[in-house]
Amino acid sequence: MLVMGIDPGLSRCGYGVVRGRGRAAEAVAAGVIRTAKTDPIPQRLYELQSELADLITIHRPETVAIEQVLFQVNVRTAMGVGQASGVAMAVAAGSGAEVAEYSPTQIKMAVAGWGGAGKEQVGRMVQTLLRLPQPLKPVDAADAIAVALCHLAHLPIRSSIRAAR
Amino acid sequence: MLVMGIDPGLSRCGYGVVRGRGRAAEAVAAGVIRTAKTDPIPQRLYELQSELADLITIHRPETVAIEQVLFQVNVRTAMGVGQASGVAMAVAAGSGAEVAEYSPTQIKMAVAGWGGAGKEQVGRMVQTLLRLPQPLKPVDAADAIAVALCHLAHLPIRSSIRAAR
Repeated sequence: MLVMGIDPGLSRCGYGVVRGRGRAAEAVAAGVIRTAKTDPIPQRLYELQSELADLITIHRPETVAIEQVLFQVNVRTAMGVGQASGVAMAVAAGSGAEVAEYSPTQIKMAVAGWGGAGKEQVGRMVQTLLRLPQPLKPVDAADAIAVALCHLAHLPIRSSIRAAR
Repeated sequence: MLVMGIDPGLSRCGYGVVRGRGRAAEAVAAGVIRTAKTDPIPQRLYELQSELADLITIHRPETVAIEQVLFQVNVRTAMGVGQASGVAMAVAAGSGAEVAEYSPTQIKMAVAGWGGAGKEQVGRMVQTLLRLPQPLKPVDAADAIAVALCHLAHLPIRSSIRAAR
């Protein structure tokens, strides 16, 4: 089960590909797509679209799990994150992959055990769960891996919901 | 000068193609891309992406003018509009067209003469400017035409700014 997690953003969009085997998970790839703040926003969104499409073509994830954008305190950046998440969702759906969305609280709960966990705590749990020698950098890549791990953690629940229908 | 205007939205995304010749303008095409509220959002964003890409391929506008999404009173729909606008911008930039953004106030100013104009007034001015026998329906298509007309109205200014550099 190959899952690509995405932590959407316009300046920095984290991605992480994880292979799940039963209760174990291994990291396949992780990184950050960056776009230049000095470029026009449509150009930056197009670059994001192209790079995500390339990554999905290379890795062929069965599921793309995307962190849900909530209306945040920072209204100035929320629109860019919303636009980036829209682009990510369209590309993922167009690839034929299943697309799943998880809230920040669901992700923290799944990875660190409680919804109020900080970024550092999530990063340490990602390191532990994937048995990495050191914390994954940059933090956007670790966050994206956390989204993918959250999807893997929800799989047993999703399967039983499907079975119960 | 062929301009495609877009009034972004997830349930209804208006588009309108206008040809400008000096001070005159004629409508080439207009309509609304609809996606079903019952479908998953990633699927809807992908449909929007595909249909906009098809329209741009068919009409080959030199510029795609998009209505800017501002943080609105209705927070529930604002995220969908933001995601749709992100998809529209990425598709437009990827087509090689120039992409321009105008605020709702700029659009109303350009078409109806004042920034507080209502939707009906904008619709009547679109009808008058394009010499249509009756108001363009649905309203999202008329709004998209208004975005394209706004871009045409700004062209002399944009050219003189470029010339002054």
